[in-house]
Amino acid sequence: MIRYLEHPKLQDPIFVEGLPGIGNVGKLAAEHLKDELKGVKFAEIFSKYFPPQVMVQDDGRIKLVNNELHYVQRGPGKDILLLTGDYQGLTPEGQYELSDFILREISKFGVKRVFTLGGYGMGRMITKPRVLGAATDVELVKEMEKHGVVFSRGEPGAGIVGASGLLLGLGLLYDMKAVCLMGETSGYFVDPKSAQAVLEVLTAVLGVTVSFAELENKAKQIDQITSKLRDIEASPDTPDKREDLGYIG
Amino acid sequence: MIRYLEHPKLQDPIFVEGLPGIGNVGKLAAEHLKDELKGVKFAEIFSKYFPPQVMVQDDGRIKLVNNELHYVQRGPGKDILLLTGDYQGLTPEGQYELSDFILREISKFGVKRVFTLGGYGMGRMITKPRVLGAATDVELVKEMEKHGVVFSRGEPGAGIVGASGLLLGLGLLYDMKAVCLMGETSGYFVDPKSAQAVLEVLTAVLGVTVSFAELENKAKQIDQITSKLRDIEASPDTPDKREDLGYIG
Amino acid sequence: MIRYLEHPKLQDPIFVEGLPGIGNVGKLAAEHLKDELKGVKFAEIFSKYFPPQVMVQDDGRIKLVNNELHYVQRGPGKDILLLTGDYQGLTPEGQYELSDFILREISKFGVKRVFTLGGYGMGRMITKPRVLGAATDVELVKEMEKHGVVFSRGEPGAGIVGASGLLLGLGLLYDMKAVCLMGETSGYFVDPKSAQAVLEVLTAVLGVTVSFAELENKAKQIDQITSKLRDIEASPDTPDKREDLGYIG
Amino acid sequence: MIRYLEHPKLQDPIFVEGLPGIGNVGKLAAEHLKDELKGVKFAEIFSKYFPPQVMVQDDGRIKLVNNELHYVQRGPGKDILLLTGDYQGLTPEGQYELSDFILREISKFGVKRVFTLGGYGMGRMITKPRVLGAATDVELVKEMEKHGVVFSRGEPGAGIVGASGLLLGLGLLYDMKAVCLMGETSGYFVDPKSAQAVLEVLTAVLGVTVSFAELENKAKQIDQITSKLRDIEASPDTPDKREDLGYIG
Repeated sequence: MIRYLEHPKLQDPIFVEGLPGIGNVGKLAAEHLKDELKGVKFAEIFSKYFPPQVMVQDDGRIKLVNNELHYVQRGPGKDILLLTGDYQGLTPEGQYELSDFILREISKFGVKRVFTLGGYGMGRMITKPRVLGAATDVELVKEMEKHGVVFSRGEPGAGIVGASGLLLGLGLLYDMKAVCLMGETSGYFVDPKSAQAVLEVLTAVLGVTVSFAELENKAKQIDQITSKLRDIEASPDTPDKREDLGYIG
Repeated sequence: MIRYLEHPKLQDPIFVEGLPGIGNVGKLAAEHLKDELKGVKFAEIFSKYFPPQVMVQDDGRIKLVNNELHYVQRGPGKDILLLTGDYQGLTPEGQYELSDFILREISKFGVKRVFTLGGYGMGRMITKPRVLGAATDVELVKEMEKHGVVFSRGEPGAGIVGASGLLLGLGLLYDMKAVCLMGETSGYFVDPKSAQAVLEVLTAVLGVTVSFAELENKAKQIDQITSKLRDIEASPDTPDKREDLGYIG
Repeated sequence: MIRYLEHPKLQDPIFVEGLPGIGNVGKLAAEHLKDELKGVKFAEIFSKYFPPQVMVQDDGRIKLVNNELHYVQRGPGKDILLLTGDYQGLTPEGQYELSDFILREISKFGVKRVFTLGGYGMGRMITKPRVLGAATDVELVKEMEKHGVVFSRGEPGAGIVGASGLLLGLGLLYDMKAVCLMGETSGYFVDPKSAQAVLEVLTAVLGVTVSFAELENKAKQIDQITSKLRDIEASPDTPDKREDLGYIG
Repeated sequence: MIRYLEHPKLQDPIFVEGLPGIGNVGKLAAEHLKDELKGVKFAEIFSKYFPPQVMVQDDGRIKLVNNELHYVQRGPGKDILLLTGDYQGLTPEGQYELSDFILREISKFGVKRVFTLGGYGMGRMITKPRVLGAATDVELVKEMEKHGVVFSRGEPGAGIVGASGLLLGLGLLYDMKAVCLMGETSGYFVDPKSAQAVLEVLTAVLGVTVSFAELENKAKQIDQITSKLRDIEASPDTPDKREDLGYIG
């Protein structure tokens, strides 16, 4: 179900999705964009397809896990609708139900163009992440290539799983033209650098300018952690530490 | 589905939930309160989200696993609705469906205030359990703090999972103000001591007085079992007994 | 969904259920009773809660896995409705949906009395299986005790799982009086001897006489297999054969 | 949901299904038939029972995973409806829902005869695959036997699982006469040879002639891979390679 806090008037808004996933790239990118453009939260989506869980905030208040819609008013055809959230649907059926629900809601605002943001797990450390793309039509492919997006035959080999893929696939049934932007990432850590790469493309396409200082700060922190981990690994007297790395999400 | 045995007239009742969970703290507390206040069972909730199972009672009669609603009549704004039961929903979706169903039912009685009871697993033995809290608004946080409830930044880190959390989170959508009271517990045993700590807070808030003799008895029994287990562990010639401890729920 | 092959006129029929389960006791008993009383199949139940599977019969024709209803006309209050089948529901929710569906269907025939048949797994070889019982009311408990059914405090400890339990528990909501008869069985093999013990009680209650020759034959075959297995086990030079036993269902 | 690209007029069409399964035999056969007969895609089926996934095509465009319907116009009683696709339903319930949905759709075209195609896993390499059959009635069994289809008592022992079975079993409820043709296959590799064996029967039944050159090419490629794998296995200094074989689907 959706709870509207406000009913904004938007003109042909562009929809941007960034939910948790590989390297948390999509969520980091969408939240950064929302913060920089001072997006206003106007709706909360609750669902039985999310975990049955509340978070406890620092002031002791609870928050039921959700997805949230934000808007940025920039004028006709430039308005932005942003989806962020705590979780994606837990089951395949839940993923379909939620993506379809979101498309139905945003179609009420006249959305015709969709950008979904995510990470593309490489299984190795990435220094300069490329941004891979997938789109609903060939014109969009060409347009994105002009912005440096890589469309590489056979990548991603397994297709795109989850909301970032479904919003494109089901979006076609709602006559929405859509692009998925995937930042390369190791897949082992949250990856603000990959999120920045994705956002550099997206902001260029949208014609907005944002500061990346915050993401760069986060990237530095992650770099410090990963280089410490490398030191520990390299150190001869701690041969067993390697298994402690795992996924830090 | 719900089967009403009786349709009690209640005046702005307060709702208290205690279902099975960590250390069985919530269930122990709610059942003790029900027994002490001579709560009357008036409704049974059956659901396909519970296990497909009947229990066999001592007289050979069966009982389909369920949740039960009890009432205590104490006067306007002081009446109590109590939920206890055999199980929580088996699946995430079932948890949502059941919590929403219960909220819909209790809203018919005009419930505006909710207390959910549970345990907070510490992973180590606890001698003097604190009672942690989470609430739907800041006024409730302050009120609970006066009763000794601890609101600790970052606790519980993983949020609150299951009915005790959902009834708060979804309760907000029903305009109910709610508090979750969590007694610290090791998480290894059923914990009547933690249930007592939770009830000491709740009875003070509700302005009722109850005997804790029954819970203290149960706590002594558990103490005897756990101290025996410690003896076995300490004994040098039984090095393998440790793994037999496990969860005694 | 249910497909009726015929719409029999029955007078206050008694319902008997025997579906696959521990030792296949219930299914063996119900099918034997159906065969001996020349029950007529009149309805097939198909469900998405069964496995997505067809069986191939000896003549090459397929049969979608199902549950089947049979009737035996014996006169007012003595007519019998028999449920047998290939499977129980695969999921907990499916179990509830199916049991409720069956109760709704049989209530159309005016069923007021239900017998569910099953096995009670003991985890050890049983020479003379007792028949344990559980019932919806105390009068039925007493009546069954006269027929030698054992109502033993704390047995079965884990309650009754699946259709044999749900038809009792949900049957209460349909005003049906019901008994579950459970034959003791090792749980390692299909157990015609346990099925016979159950049927000896049931036929006495129903006032019918049937031959047990067929079940005795099956029991002998199983006995031969299990005694061979015991020989192999006892043989000193095959210490590893034990793990091959497993469940022969 | 189904999206029609075109509403073809067909006269008593015959329905042929070939979805992914053991050895991918059914899918290979149905796609080859579609290609050879120049089948025209006219409908796409999307479902929450498929994986929440889009594929990325070579030109960068996405394709939501689906099942597809194709038609071949050959004249009254000879028209063909072909179902191919990326996936079968993920869950048992999904399998039922999808098969029933497909039967409902094709019944609108007046389908009375159904062929489902699949593989029959033998667990060993097969040089000359037989084609096993199962059918909804004895006349069809006889007719198929004339075309060399083997109806072998006790084969397949576990019945037929998935769409190829359900379309027969549920098809009976739609008054459709149906045959399942299963090509013997090892089950370890995709098996174009087995697909050809199945198609040789089906084309004879349908009275159409097609080239098998494409399938023969694919079979040669697979043969080269498997013979290489055998060489590696046979080589004495690589005793561990065997476990790398697995399923190449």
